[in-house]
Formats: sequence, structure tokens, C-alpha cells
Amino acid sequence: MPDERERQQGVVACVAYRDGRRVGEVTIADISEAIRVDGQFVWIGLREPVDALLRQLQEEFGLHDLAVEDALRAHQRPKLERYGESVFVVLRTVERGTEGRRVDFGETHLFLGPRYVISVRHGASSSYAGVRGRCEAAPALLAKGPAFVLYALMDFVVDQYFPVVDALEDELEALEEAIFGQAFSRETTARIYELKRDLVEVKRAVSPLVDVCNRLVRFDLDLVPEDVRLYFRDVYDHVVRLNEMVDVTRELLTTALEANLSLLSVSQNEATKRLAAWAAIIAVPTMIAGVYGMNFEAMPELKWRWGYPASVVVMLGVCSWLYVRFKRAGWL
Amino acid sequence: MPDERERQQGVVACVAYRDGRRVGEVTIADISEAIRVDGQFVWIGLREPVDALLRQLQEEFGLHDLAVEDALRAHQRPKLERYGESVFVVLRTVERGTEGRRVDFGETHLFLGPRYVISVRHGASSSYAGVRGRCEAAPALLAKGPAFVLYALMDFVVDQYFPVVDALEDELEALEEAIFGQAFSRETTARIYELKRDLVEVKRAVSPLVDVCNRLVRFDLDLVPEDVRLYFRDVYDHVVRLNEMVDVTRELLTTALEANLSLLSVSQNEATKRLAAWAAIIAVPTMIAGVYGMNFEAMPELKWRWGYPASVVVMLGVCSWLYVRFKRAGWL
Amino acid sequence: MPDERERQQGVVACVAYRDGRRVGEVTIADISEAIRVDGQFVWIGLREPVDALLRQLQEEFGLHDLAVEDALRAHQRPKLERYGESVFVVLRTVERGTEGRRVDFGETHLFLGPRYVISVRHGASSSYAGVRGRCEAAPALLAKGPAFVLYALMDFVVDQYFPVVDALEDELEALEEAIFGQAFSRETTARIYELKRDLVEVKRAVSPLVDVCNRLVRFDLDLVPEDVRLYFRDVYDHVVRLNEMVDVTRELLTTALEANLSLLSVSQNEATKRLAAWAAIIAVPTMIAGVYGMNFEAMPELKWRWGYPASVVVMLGVCSWLYVRFKRAGWL
Amino acid sequence: MPDERERQQGVVACVAYRDGRRVGEVTIADISEAIRVDGQFVWIGLREPVDALLRQLQEEFGLHDLAVEDALRAHQRPKLERYGESVFVVLRTVERGTEGRRVDFGETHLFLGPRYVISVRHGASSSYAGVRGRCEAAPALLAKGPAFVLYALMDFVVDQYFPVVDALEDELEALEEAIFGQAFSRETTARIYELKRDLVEVKRAVSPLVDVCNRLVRFDLDLVPEDVRLYFRDVYDHVVRLNEMVDVTRELLTTALEANLSLLSVSQNEATKRLAAWAAIIAVPTMIAGVYGMNFEAMPELKWRWGYPASVVVMLGVCSWLYVRFKRAGWL
Amino acid sequence: MPDERERQQGVVACVAYRDGRRVGEVTIADISEAIRVDGQFVWIGLREPVDALLRQLQEEFGLHDLAVEDALRAHQRPKLERYGESVFVVLRTVERGTEGRRVDFGETHLFLGPRYVISVRHGASSSYAGVRGRCEAAPALLAKGPAFVLYALMDFVVDQYFPVVDALEDELEALEEAIFGQAFSRETTARIYELKRDLVEVKRAVSPLVDVCNRLVRFDLDLVPEDVRLYFRDVYDHVVRLNEMVDVTRELLTTALEANLSLLSVSQNEATKRLAAWAAIIAVPTMIAGVYGMNFEAMPELKWRWGYPASVVVMLGVCSWLYVRFKRAGWL
Repeated sequence: MPDERERQQGVVACVAYRDGRRVGEVTIADISEAIRVDGQFVWIGLREPVDALLRQLQEEFGLHDLAVEDALRAHQRPKLERYGESVFVVLRTVERGTEGRRVDFGETHLFLGPRYVISVRHGASSSYAGVRGRCEAAPALLAKGPAFVLYALMDFVVDQYFPVVDALEDELEALEEAIFGQAFSRETTARIYELKRDLVEVKRAVSPLVDVCNRLVRFDLDLVPEDVRLYFRDVYDHVVRLNEMVDVTRELLTTALEANLSLLSVSQNEATKRLAAWAAIIAVPTMIAGVYGMNFEAMPELKWRWGYPASVVVMLGVCSWLYVRFKRAGWL
Repeated sequence: MPDERERQQGVVACVAYRDGRRVGEVTIADISEAIRVDGQFVWIGLREPVDALLRQLQEEFGLHDLAVEDALRAHQRPKLERYGESVFVVLRTVERGTEGRRVDFGETHLFLGPRYVISVRHGASSSYAGVRGRCEAAPALLAKGPAFVLYALMDFVVDQYFPVVDALEDELEALEEAIFGQAFSRETTARIYELKRDLVEVKRAVSPLVDVCNRLVRFDLDLVPEDVRLYFRDVYDHVVRLNEMVDVTRELLTTALEANLSLLSVSQNEATKRLAAWAAIIAVPTMIAGVYGMNFEAMPELKWRWGYPASVVVMLGVCSWLYVRFKRAGWL
Repeated sequence: MPDERERQQGVVACVAYRDGRRVGEVTIADISEAIRVDGQFVWIGLREPVDALLRQLQEEFGLHDLAVEDALRAHQRPKLERYGESVFVVLRTVERGTEGRRVDFGETHLFLGPRYVISVRHGASSSYAGVRGRCEAAPALLAKGPAFVLYALMDFVVDQYFPVVDALEDELEALEEAIFGQAFSRETTARIYELKRDLVEVKRAVSPLVDVCNRLVRFDLDLVPEDVRLYFRDVYDHVVRLNEMVDVTRELLTTALEANLSLLSVSQNEATKRLAAWAAIIAVPTMIAGVYGMNFEAMPELKWRWGYPASVVVMLGVCSWLYVRFKRAGWL
Repeated sequence: MPDERERQQGVVACVAYRDGRRVGEVTIADISEAIRVDGQFVWIGLREPVDALLRQLQEEFGLHDLAVEDALRAHQRPKLERYGESVFVVLRTVERGTEGRRVDFGETHLFLGPRYVISVRHGASSSYAGVRGRCEAAPALLAKGPAFVLYALMDFVVDQYFPVVDALEDELEALEEAIFGQAFSRETTARIYELKRDLVEVKRAVSPLVDVCNRLVRFDLDLVPEDVRLYFRDVYDHVVRLNEMVDVTRELLTTALEANLSLLSVSQNEATKRLAAWAAIIAVPTMIAGVYGMNFEAMPELKWRWGYPASVVVMLGVCSWLYVRFKRAGWL
Repeated sequence: MPDERERQQGVVACVAYRDGRRVGEVTIADISEAIRVDGQFVWIGLREPVDALLRQLQEEFGLHDLAVEDALRAHQRPKLERYGESVFVVLRTVERGTEGRRVDFGETHLFLGPRYVISVRHGASSSYAGVRGRCEAAPALLAKGPAFVLYALMDFVVDQYFPVVDALEDELEALEEAIFGQAFSRETTARIYELKRDLVEVKRAVSPLVDVCNRLVRFDLDLVPEDVRLYFRDVYDHVVRLNEMVDVTRELLTTALEANLSLLSVSQNEATKRLAAWAAIIAVPTMIAGVYGMNFEAMPELKWRWGYPASVVVMLGVCSWLYVRFKRAGWL
């Protein structure tokens, strides 16, 4: 276990492994010694480390200046960069959002050399203790060296995306119901827009991983033994599937927005027709009443005994006739 | 025929073939022996097998862990992966939907080695008994080995898509009629959206197969003899055609949605104009009646004998004139 | 000339050529002999042949099973496939539509070997007699062998598309006039949609030819001599131009549809404003008349001698003033 | 100078050059001789030549049949084709339109061999006399041979596009003002559509040049010496910039069309609200007047002395109150 | 420091460096001498230089004519061009706009040879004095030669884009609030359009840099030592991120515009419904009043004592009932 000072600097764990088995905790100060042992490598987990710590490790392992600066600044896009025989990987991690936001992103930087793996977590991200545990439980695989640790971490990070994307798909379904049900409202459009924004964000985090995995599978990185590549192909597969899920959701969302607009037009159409129909139904008796409200002296109907009831009957008749016609035409 | 226990575990059939001819049923337990015979291979059909069975076969044939895990979990996207000299293929199968859904998807996983073909069916999918029958009826082709079985299965799976895509094309035609006919309704838009969703789903199942077939045709897989590649080119062709049919339907659907919106505007326009025209026709006599309903003492018209009929004639005249004008202008 | 039996089976012509010159008609039965002569090849023209005939030719020339099955089934997409040293080409032919349809498609399958060309026509398609005539009139070119015949047929098929695409461009122009002129109607939208559908169909028939020609120009097909490739480049050029014409028309059509929607909104706007303006002009005198129709005993205006004319003047004045204002504001 | 007969056939100029210096005018008849001189080449300028002339040159220089046919027919798309060691280039030339059209297109065909350049102009196109003059003024460059002439002509043709594209950008700006200013009208939509059409046309003429220049820069054409390639890179650059300008204008235009639609909706909204507001303001006093126009015997208000003024005050009060409310709500 | 004459010609600084350390100021006249010293190079900073100065430097360093002409004319798109062993780079610089414009662009041209770097600034652009200072402060890096200076300048230019793109993202957020808040107005659409235009402009300046950086990282330019390439990879990374930020903002903006249109329809819908509801509520009592305003002699209600109050009660009742119903239906 890292001592208190190290913990405060950001060290979560620092363990040496040989032949897939855990040799024991190492302090940062003893690392030089630990990695001099043949067939042994250290796996260091950091969380928002202080600058001094990263600089110390940089000296220890000869990390490249540009990589370390990236790790200090964060806000990188996912990428894999090769510096001589070592590799620097940036991943965006994801978590189900808190406080009304649906998605929270973090970042993990991984330094990988023949004798070390360093993971640096920033922002929203689950602990990697579980990954370490599962790796230690499979010594045969862990014996393949740092590349397998890289796989384990990437696999974990990528798998976190599935529940998030599932949640976005569920939201799309909920929106479909809101759109095609009657409950349309101003708020639906806002929700469509928010979903779109989340999808774009997830896409942005996931799509560069296609390229990263591809390079791990195909290119000739000495660090990655032949049989570990199959594992990265598995991650590649997951990433492609995530990408596809996001794209499909995005495309359907676009169609949903258009359908939405279409239905608004239908609804507008209906309202206009109803308005027109009722206006006509009321306007006609008003007009008739107006005529018999004229003050001409010579208006014989006014003197008839049944003039008034007749006029009311005519009014009701015209209204009923209009009502039926509009009903049949689908305007009411 | 597999015995009761095997059947319960998910075995549908397990047959050995030599030189394209059926040698006979084999139990899972006897497989090791069966595949030791020169020029002989087994074709095992499974349907939602229990985990133990798959694990047993994994040991028997040395299947890769990642492939077996995919087969256990299902919900993969279509792909072809090579593990040493064996190959793992994932296909999405399709069936005309039941209970109101138009399309039902299943999954088939295929393990292919020099001496075995294992097919694993999940979810909606037709039985492969027919495929087996047709293969056995053509010993010359079946003699080409497991690769030909792979072709036969893929060809069958792909051909299932044609009636489904045809049905989607028919639905598009029905929608066209609904849109351009008068029978427009709120439900049409919902149907457009559903068709879109089905198309996206089918596309998602079919389009990765372009790549899969391409690799079977072009890349140097020892498992696939030169003359079987021509057959995969045929499958490739079908997949490309399916893809194209889906794309064309999708593009037309988008245009249909836009045309729909356009027609709604036309319809809205017409309703507004009609409303305006009738409002004008009724408002004018109402206004005239209002004027002669005023109580001024000095209104000479009121005393005229023909005042009342004259006013009615004027009202009717104005209304007729308006009616004719609106009719000519196409507002009525 | 093919005898009656052959003609009934679907043979249109079957002629042997040597050094670019016509040697003479050959019956199907004599083909084996004809193609054994050095430097001689046969060009067989079929139209919707019976299955037996195709099977007979398959045996004669060793055509591949998959190619023959395609030719029997038709409904393929345009493609070029190589079987050993022979080639199978599928083309979609086009004709100006009859009976209200604008475009009719057919299919032509071409089998090409070192010593034979077989063309199989299905559906709407012009006769290839003219092509044969032109080829025979240019022995120097025809001497280049079956590849030149392939060129001549493809060139002919592709050239049939130009008048069809021209007609679609003309229809777009007619639609532009309908949209931007006043004569907008519900039918215009339907015509836009139909044009779109035709364009998509033509595109689907033409665009795979880009790839087919490309392969004939660039890849190393022994069947196509170096100097005939230049001719396929010419066909390639035409295909690219057709493609481009269709794409441009399609893009403009999309914009036209949007412009259409925009103009509908303008028109809706104008109708609403006019409705509002006339409603206001009529409502005001109606209101004034209403006021003087009230039955209060103490309404001094009612007793004035000039009350009535004054009120009418006020009504007319207000109406005129409103009319002028609306006119100026562009509402009327 | 070409003699009268040649001029009538379409010869504009035919000059021999050696070591970058003008040797002198040559008649078509003397060309054979002129190009036999070592280090000498002829540059022939034609304008809509008669067929016979082109056929004569074809024989003289051994031009390929397909190229000559293209040059006779015109209406080609821009392209570069290699025939053996000679090259055939098609360019679309442009001019500011006359008589209401904004853009006029022409075509120039260039035949290029080790010892000749032939330019053939069709339709709208500026004279190439200036290009010839500038080339002759730079003998060091002209000494690089026909390839430099090709550069000079292409550079000239491409530079003609800049003022045209600038004019289209200006039109977009004018449209922006029309859209976002108040002066919206039916004509604006038509102008948007026309601009779109012009952009599509220019794009169609320019974009194939990217490929043409690329081939001149990169591929191994013996005709183009290493140091002339840099010049084609310059043309390439201009073409890419033109392409980009057109694309940007096109994208903004699409957005402008959408913004247009959006603003029409806003305007429609405003009109509807105003209509509603005024309708309400007028309807209320009309209703009140209607009530006091009723003929009930027992209506005490009618007998009050201040009944009439009171009712008018109430009417005015309600109207004012409504007016203020609508004003505040932004409906008026 | 450059003397007064040089300063007037456009020289900002002209300094010689050896082994990463500053040797001292050099006048343009003494450059030939300065670059003859082994391991020494000069870094010349110009700002809108006069033509004569550039021509002088062209002679001094053997710059290519086409590059110098580009530098004189400006208005190039970003690019990298190689002339023999020297390189010419064009960058678009950006600054937060002044006077209402959000973004101001300038241009920087860089000539790079084994012994010189020349930077030429045009238009809006920050001074490069800071870059020079930072380079001089890191002699170990500056010792890598002109390529490192190129990196430092490109890095600086690219970093200027981040605040600009951030500002555009902020504007998008402000627009989102305007759209989804109630404060919608005609001006919002104009702002959407302007943001789009700015994004397109930035995209146009940034996206060609992807290619430029890629070539600096990957291609075999002798001028760029292996270890400096890592630095260009860093710039590449920033450029890709900028590109992505712009694309994401652009996509969201498009969706925002559509959402905007959708909300306008909602708002239109609401207005129409309200209008209809109020029209109905007022029309009904008007009609009733009209009926009792008729002048029939035999209208018993008119003589009833409670006729008038009863009719008013009926009117109020109907209005209340309508009001409640409309309220419940969400029309009011």
C-alpha cells in the first residue's frame, strides 16, 4: 500500500508483477530497483497526481516531454502515440451522469513501456481496482506483460460505454412515444436536442478508439505480443459496435425530428380546419339574425306569427347541416 | 440422430462427411475419433446450446476463448475473425416478424476449422436442415470441405433477407399511395418512421457482410480453396444488392417524408384560403344587415317599400360575386 | 440465319468471324467446329433464351455454373466477373418508357471468352443488330476480337442512357417552371417525387458501371488487348458523365423541393395576411353599425338629421384608411 | 499569319518555336517539315475548326481516333487522357454571362505531343492570344517545351473562374441581406435556387480538374519535365481553392435557405398573432353592442340616462385593456 | 535591431543562431556572410514587406518564383510545398474580431531552408516576438535547427484558434438558451446564420492544416529531423481537435436550426388554437344577442320579465363552459 505522502500525491497503487504473479507493493522510490529484476514489471495507478510525481516518474522511465505535458493538461482527444519503444494512450472514460446530466466524461492516460504501465485518471471515472483484481486472478494472461494490462484497462473503459449508450437508446424510445403519442409539447423538442448533444459527445469519445484499436491490432508495435492482439481485436469489435449504436440512434433521431415537424403540421392543419368549421357554423345564424334585426318597415316576415320560430328552425337546420358536412369531411 | 441428453443440451445434428458423402451420425463423445479419419469432417448443428456443451466443443477443437465467449453472449455484430487456421463467423439471421413486428432478428455463429463446422443458432432463425439436405444432394460440391458448408449457410442466411426487404419496399409503395392520395393522416407519419427504423435495422445486419464476403473472396484464408471463392463472390453479390435495395428505399423514404411535409403545407394553404373565402362571403351580408339594423331616425331606405327586398338582393349579389371570384382564384 | 427451331429457343443470330471479317452464319450444333478454326470466334445473340439452350452453350464453352444461373434468373445488378480466362458481364439496358412510365429497364448478360461472345437480352432493350452491322463495317477494329465486341455492346447500352437522362433533365426544368411560376399544385410535389424515383433507378443502373469499366481499363484481363482498353476508357468517360448528370439533377431536385416548401410558406403567409386585412376592413363597420343598433333611449346621434349619413361616411372612411394602410404594408 | 482559307477553316495561329523563341508562322501544309527540325515544336490555335482540318492534323500528328472524336463532338467533361506518349486534355472555360445569365461555359481541347500543342476552342471562351504573348515574353520558360504551354493555357483557363466565383459569392451576400432584411419576397427563393444551379455548374466544371492537375503533378508523364510539375502544382492549388470557395458558398446557401424558411415561419407567426389580437379587440365591443341591441322589453340599462355613454366607455376600456395586454405580450 | 530603412521595408527582426544560442542581429546585407558559417542559421521576421525586400531575399536564398509570388499576393489557402530541399508553408492566422466581427483572419508565409527561416505576416496576426523569446529560452530545442522554429511558429498559430473556437461554442450555448427559452425572435435566426458562417470560415482555415502536419510528421523531408517530428505530431493533434470542435459545433447548430423551426411550428400551433378558442367564446354570445335583436313581433321571450337577465346568464354560462373545455384541451 502506498504510504500517506504518496497517497496525497495521487498514488493509488504501485505493484510489481513477475510471470503474471503479484510480487508485492513497491514505493515510488524503489521502482528503479524493481524494474531491474528480469521478467518483472510494475503497474502504477495514479489519480489526479501532483505535477512533481509525474515529473519524477518521467525521469524514472524516460517518458517523453510531450506525453507528460498532455497528461498534466488533460482535455486531450483519445489517441495512441508511440515514443520510441514506449506507447502513450489517451482514453475518455464515461459515467452515468449525476444531477440531471446524463453523461459525465473523464480521462485516463496510460504510459506503457516494456517494464511498466502507468495509468493516470482524471475526472469522472470508476476505480481500476476491479481490473487489477481480475488481472491478478488470471496469471496466465497477466504473464503476457504490460500489453495485457493495457487491454484489460481499455476493455474496462470501453465496457462502461454500453450502459450509457443503452440509456440514450431508451431515451430515444421515450421520445418516440412522446412524439407519436398525443402528448406533444415544447419540451419534447428540447429533449430531442439534448439527446443529440449527448450522442455527439459520446461519438466524439468513442470514434477515435476505432483507429487506436486498429493500430494495436495491426501495426507492428514490439510491445504487443502476437497473441495479445486478438484481445485488442475484441476491444475493436466493441468500439465498432458502440459507434454503430450511436450512429443508428443519431439517424433515427434525425428522422424523429422530421416526423415531429410533420406531425406539428398535421396538428396545425387540424386546428385550422376546426377553427374554420366552427366559425362557419356560428357565422351563419349570426348573419340570419342580423337580417331580421334590420329596421325596414316593410318586412312581412316580421309580422308573421311563426316568423320567429321559423327563423330559429332555419338557423338550427343550417347549423346542423353544416355540422354534418364538416364531420364527414373530417374537419371536425 | 443425437440422443435425448444431447438434444436437451442443444445439439440438433452432428454428422461426419467424407469425400462429400455422409458417413453417419456421430455423438459428441465420439467426435475426436471421427475427425482423426483422413479426409473426413464433422458438421455440428446447435441451437441455443448450454454453456457446458460449447465448452466441451471448445476443448475438443481448440476454439479460441474470445470466440466462444462471443458465441455464449450473442448480440454481436456480423463479422469474420481468424484465429490461427480456424475462422469464426457471426451472422444476423432474419425472419418476417410475428405479432405486428415486421422483422425479427436472430444470430448464427459459425466455427470453421479444417475438420469441422459448428453452427450455433440463437433467436429467430429458420432451421438449417434444408441446407444440410441440399448439400448432401450435391456431393461433388460438399467434397470441397467445410468452406463449402460455410458458403451454403451464408447463402441461405442472406437469401432470407430478400423477402424481408421486398416487404419493406412494398410498404414504401403503400406509403406513397397514402401520401399522394388524399388519405393523409397522423398515422402515415408514424408508419414512415417505423419503416425507417426497420430499414436501419436491416442495413445494420447486412452491411457488415460486404466486408465479411470480401475477405472470404480476396484474402488468403487457407480454409477456403480457390474454387470455393467464386461461390462467396456470389454471396457478396447478393449482399451488395440487398444493401443497395435498402439504400434506395431509404433515400426514397426521406424524399417521401419531405414530400409529405410539402403536401401538408399545400393542404394547410388550401384550408386557410377556404376559411378566408367563406369568412368574407358571410361577413359582407352581416355587415349590411348591421347597417340597416341601426336605429337612426332618419334612414330613408327603411321607409322605402322595396328597401328590404333590395337589401336582400344586394346581399345575395355581393355574396354571389365574391363566390365566383374566389372560385376563379382557386380559393374555393 | 438461325433456323426456325433455334429462333424459337431464343437465338437471334450466330455468326463466325475471322480477322474482322464475317465468315458466315453457324448453327448452334456446328459451333464446336467453328471455334476450332484458328483466329476465328463466334458472336451469338440470344433474346430470352430457353433454359435448355443456355445449358447447351454452357457445356459447349465451359461457362461457370454461377454465371449461367445469373443469366437464367436475371434481376442482377450490373457487374463484371472473371471466371478463369473468361468473363461474365451484366448490364442494365434502358428505354424511354411506354404507357406513362418514363423509364423501362431491361438486362443484358454477356459471356466473353477467347473465341466467343454471347449476348443474352432480357426485357426492355433495343436490338443489337445495329451494333453488329457497325462492327462488321469496321473489320480493322473487329479483328481485335471478342473484347471489341464487348466494347461495342457496352458503348451502345451506355449511349441509350443519354436521351433518358436528358428527358429527366427536361422534366426538372418543367418542374422549376411549375414551382417558380404561379401554377403550384398538389400534383407538382408528386411529380418531384416521381422524378426522384426515376433518378434513383437510373443511378442504380449506371453507377456500378464505373467500376466495371475501370476494371476493364486497368486490370490485367488477358481477354482485353492493350489497344482495346482505350475504348473502354471512352465508355468509362460516358458512364462518369451520366453519373454526374444524374447527381447534379438529383441535387437540384432536392433544392427545388426545399424551395417549393419555402414558396408554400410564402404563399401561406400572403393568404393569412390578406385574410387578416379583409377581416379587419369588414369588422370595423360591423362594429360601428352594432353600436348604433343599440336600443338605448338616450342616444342623441340617433335623432340627428345627418346621423345616418355621417355614420356611413365614418364607416367608409375607416375602411378606406385601413385599405390604404394594408395596401402599403403589402398585406393586400 | 494563317491565310484566308486556313482562317476560314478555324486556324487562329500556327507558330513554330525553338529554344523558347518564336521561329515564325507556319502554314498547316508546312507543319511536317517544321516539326522535323530538332528542338522545335509548333503551337496551333484553333477555334471551332471544320472537321476536315482536325482530320488533317490527326493524320499529321497521329492523334488517336477517340480523342479527335471527342474534340469534334465537344460536350465532354474535363479530363486528361494519355494516348501513348501524347496527351489529350479537355477543359471547360467560363465567362461572365451575357443577357441575364450569370455564367457561360465553353470548352477547350488540348492535344499535346513532344513536338506540338494544339488548342481547340468551342463556345464561350476568351482568346488565347494573350497567353501566347506572355509565353513568348518568357523564353526561358517557353524553352521547357509543350508542357509549359499546357501549363500557361490551364492557368489562364482556371484564372477565369475566380471573377465568376467572386460574383457568385457577392450574390450570396446580396441574398443574405434580402433574407435577413425585411424585403423578403417570392423572388428571393427563386434567386437562391438560381445561385444554387450556377454553383453546381461551376463545381461540375472545376472539380474534375483536381484530378487532372494531380496526375500532371504526380504521375510519370514523360511529356512533363520535373521542373514544370511545380507549375502544375500551382494550378492544382488554384483549382482546390476554387473548389473550396464553391463548396463554402454552397453550404452557406443551404443554411440560408433553411434560415429563410425559419424566418417565414416567424413572419407567419407574427401575422397570425396580430390577426388574433385585432380580431379580439374588435369582437368585444361588437358583442357588447349586440347585447344592447336586443329587443327585450325589460332592459333597465336602456332607460338610464347615462346608459349609452357608459356602454361606450366600457367598450373603449375593454379595447384599451386588450390592446395594452397584446402589446406587452408582443402580439401587436 | 533592424535599422530604420529595413524597418520601413518590413523587417521586424533578423537574427543569427548557432547551436541553439543567439549569435546576434544581422542586417539583410550581411546575411550571405552569416549563413556561410557552419552550423549557423538566420531567422528573419517580416511584416507586410515591400516587394523589393522579398525579391532581394529570393535572390539571396534561391527561393522559388512561385513561392515568392504566393507570398506577395497573399490570399492563399494553408498548404505546404516543397521546392527541392527547401519548404514553403502558408498558414492562416486568427484573432478575436474587433468592431462587431467575431473573427479576423491574417496570413503567415514561411520559407524554410537548411540555413534560414523567413516568416512573412499579413493582416490580423499577433507578433511572433513571444515565440522567438520562448525559443531562445530553450537552446537545447532551438539547436535542432529551422525545423524547430517552424514547429514553434505553427504551434503558436494553431493555439490562437482555441479561444476563437471556444467563443463560437459559447455563442452556440447562448443560442440554445435563446431558442429553448421563450425569447425567440427574428434576430436569433440571423445569429444562427452568422455563427454558421464563422464556423465555416474557421474550418476552412484549420482543416488544410491536418494534411500539412501529416506531411511534416510522416513524409521524408530532410529538413525535419526525426525527433522534431514528434513535435509536429503534437500540432497535428491540436489541429485535429480544433477540427472536431468545429464539426461538433456545426452539427449541433444544424440541429438547433431544425429544433428552432420545430418550436416555431409549436408556437404557431398554440397561437392558432388560442385564436380559435377566443373567437368561439366571443362568437357565441354575439350570436345569441343577434337572435334577440331580431325584430319579429311575436317573440314571447322579449316580453318576459326575466328574459334579459336569463339571456345574459345563458351567454355567460356558454362562455364559461367553452372556456373550461378549451382550458382542459390545452387550447388556452
